Amino acid sequence: MTTLLPCFERPGYFADANCKIALVGFGTVGSAVVRLLYARSDEHSLQLTHVCNRRVARKKVNWIPPEVMWTEDIEDVLASDVDVVVELMGGLEPAHELVRRALQSGKSVVTANKQLIAHFGSELLQLAWDRGQSLNFGACVAGGVPVLSGLRDGLAGDRLTEVCGILNGTCNCILTSIEQGSMSFAEALAEAQRAGFAEADPADDIDGFDAGAKLVILARVGLNLELRPGQVTCRSIKNVRALDFEYAHELGCTIRQVSTARINQGKVSAVVEPSLVPKESPLARVSGSENLVVSSGEFGGDIAFSGPGAGGNPTAVAVVSDLLQAVRHRSNGSERPHRPGAVSREITSDLELPQYVRFVVRDRPGIIAALAGVFSAHHINIDAVLQKPGYAKAELPFVITLEPCPECRLTPALAEIANFDFLADTPVRMPILKQELA
Amino acid sequence: MTTLLPCFERPGYFADANCKIALVGFGTVGSAVVRLLYARSDEHSLQLTHVCNRRVARKKVNWIPPEVMWTEDIEDVLASDVDVVVELMGGLEPAHELVRRALQSGKSVVTANKQLIAHFGSELLQLAWDRGQSLNFGACVAGGVPVLSGLRDGLAGDRLTEVCGILNGTCNCILTSIEQGSMSFAEALAEAQRAGFAEADPADDIDGFDAGAKLVILARVGLNLELRPGQVTCRSIKNVRALDFEYAHELGCTIRQVSTARINQGKVSAVVEPSLVPKESPLARVSGSENLVVSSGEFGGDIAFSGPGAGGNPTAVAVVSDLLQAVRHRSNGSERPHRPGAVSREITSDLELPQYVRFVVRDRPGIIAALAGVFSAHHINIDAVLQKPGYAKAELPFVITLEPCPECRLTPALAEIANFDFLADTPVRMPILKQELA
Repeated sequence: MTTLLPCFERPGYFADANCKIALVGFGTVGSAVVRLLYARSDEHSLQLTHVCNRRVARKKVNWIPPEVMWTEDIEDVLASDVDVVVELMGGLEPAHELVRRALQSGKSVVTANKQLIAHFGSELLQLAWDRGQSLNFGACVAGGVPVLSGLRDGLAGDRLTEVCGILNGTCNCILTSIEQGSMSFAEALAEAQRAGFAEADPADDIDGFDAGAKLVILARVGLNLELRPGQVTCRSIKNVRALDFEYAHELGCTIRQVSTARINQGKVSAVVEPSLVPKESPLARVSGSENLVVSSGEFGGDIAFSGPGAGGNPTAVAVVSDLLQAVRHRSNGSERPHRPGAVSREITSDLELPQYVRFVVRDRPGIIAALAGVFSAHHINIDAVLQKPGYAKAELPFVITLEPCPECRLTPALAEIANFDFLADTPVRMPILKQELA
Repeated sequence: MTTLLPCFERPGYFADANCKIALVGFGTVGSAVVRLLYARSDEHSLQLTHVCNRRVARKKVNWIPPEVMWTEDIEDVLASDVDVVVELMGGLEPAHELVRRALQSGKSVVTANKQLIAHFGSELLQLAWDRGQSLNFGACVAGGVPVLSGLRDGLAGDRLTEVCGILNGTCNCILTSIEQGSMSFAEALAEAQRAGFAEADPADDIDGFDAGAKLVILARVGLNLELRPGQVTCRSIKNVRALDFEYAHELGCTIRQVSTARINQGKVSAVVEPSLVPKESPLARVSGSENLVVSSGEFGGDIAFSGPGAGGNPTAVAVVSDLLQAVRHRSNGSERPHRPGAVSREITSDLELPQYVRFVVRDRPGIIAALAGVFSAHHINIDAVLQKPGYAKAELPFVITLEPCPECRLTPALAEIANFDFLADTPVRMPILKQELA
């Protein structure tokens, strides 16, 4: 028999009714969620009734009480009387169908599925709103860091104009390895894969799509922006080399995969890309799988949230915090916490930032003149040319830094440069986020 | 005529009814609150109806519409039909009476008054709960940083064991001046007073009572602890000298006023004191009037919140965010967000931390032996003795660092040492928070 006790006794909590929960997806996060629920069972009234997973037999554990139903059929969950479905399957389908049908059948949903919310958040929030259910997704961004509730509730009084952060621990680990171990990108990736920090197919992380999905969600909650994942410009970290860190250090910077969404004069820019950040900036100090989000408000200035961005237990904390919010929602029929209705705006890439462009060339006279000619023709001012000694002439790296220039000039300039036959490698461009963050 | 429009359209917001507001206290924060409300008037349904202040005539401004009532009598506010009273008077009385009577008369309250909530939070939350009203106080701690809502809602799923932070910008400015300008405490204080960072009577700040009140509130919200302000051990920063920074640097540290509340084996320690913190720790990097709070959870690990800890606009953001929460509360009769009922626990001072003790003596043979004898008799191990050259023998400073030892041994040892006639100044003791924060 499950004893039902009042909800967590922290101030701010109260829940009278018990709340039946089905967990769909019993992997690392799912099992951490259940362990957390049982560890705190004397403090809340959340009652696990179903665990659903493919080939569920291999998943069964003896520390879950026998009255919990194990199933591999989501129809069992949908047909049950559970109040909240916790979706931890990941991927777009069948997660999308499950969440849609759960909301349609009068259940609230908590999910940690960032791709689902980035792609279908608008539709699912509208559905939840129409059905009077709650749809919470705090675990989708920055793991255990309560940044979504912070932006939505804690900073509700401000008008936010930018969210910016380090949202992907895998990239952060790889970049740190390249920097500290002077290794190649391939070596750093292999090391991260061996250590379990990177997936066998790491494209989602290193090419920026994982962080891009999180940025879409941050922009929705913090900036009230309706973005499609495809509207986020994503540039891969895979071309970053150890020598880029050497040049970055000369500029007082290091390199991080930075995600930024910004509203400027009514237009939106949303970018995930490797970027030079000043060594003393909070972005530079993020280590390992830590995540950091900084919001900028018109009235309240810059607020930073940081902490563990991944891992079973931190993510489980976010899921259970969302569950407690769903409980409050259910005990207050009239509260519909996530209102749909974010606004679409024109996407612009005309942010003007100083740029770092690294070339590798087969050296011969006239290269700088040729490059300078192209930049000049596109009305882009060169700030400095940096060249470290000790490299072979057949594959000679050097860096040109550019004064702030809009993307609409930089892109065609770089396209023109790509035709030069002296290039031994594709040029790598990164913005320099000087003075962006104190 | 005031147009009433839907509440802020950020996801998560909705408010149908308009909400009448009285502001009591029209100083820096009050006027910033009103400016923010008017700047965003097309996005919410908050309607200012009363401004109350002593000698209100001198306060009148022409940018507030004529239908707003100006008064110096709180009875006008209490007798009105306002829904929410925003208390920005500061001080314990008559703020306490105003808030109590407002709640009794069926109004919700938003306050930025940390002393009020630290002293009377328990009583006022109970009263709000009994009357079905909300009492929000997010602006009491860390200005614009939404740490209270983050601990209460965003981290509801975790069991927090510690909150720690830099909560007083005045102390942070003074300590930074002593460090960077090699000035005396008195000079740094005078400079802060000239610059408007410190009050004419700075005791509340420098002796730790301001941070102590904030710590009481953080402990209530984050740790569900019922603390009285008098239960927080507060040690002043006034005895910190420039030479303490020199020694701290030798130990890889700097000095900050750190506030910590911790639950350990069912007992609580709550301390505000100048502390040595590693230079690479987040605490060391807090600059100026910035605030930082780090919570530690059993499941989710360490989460940091930082941003502007003071100032009219950041504090106004916190007040307006609380107002929006009050609106949601009123549109959902059954929601009673702040449940009273934090738990009292035994206070302990038996945290074991390594310590820094700085002496100034009239030099003569046998001093180290005498001090070592006392520490040894109290079973305290000396870690190192540090002495920088270049000081006069009549007033010779040096430092003894101690291995982790409980307060119940350190206090009597230092009391015994205080009797030595070779002391030229009271010894200064500070904990060394090595490895406390990554």
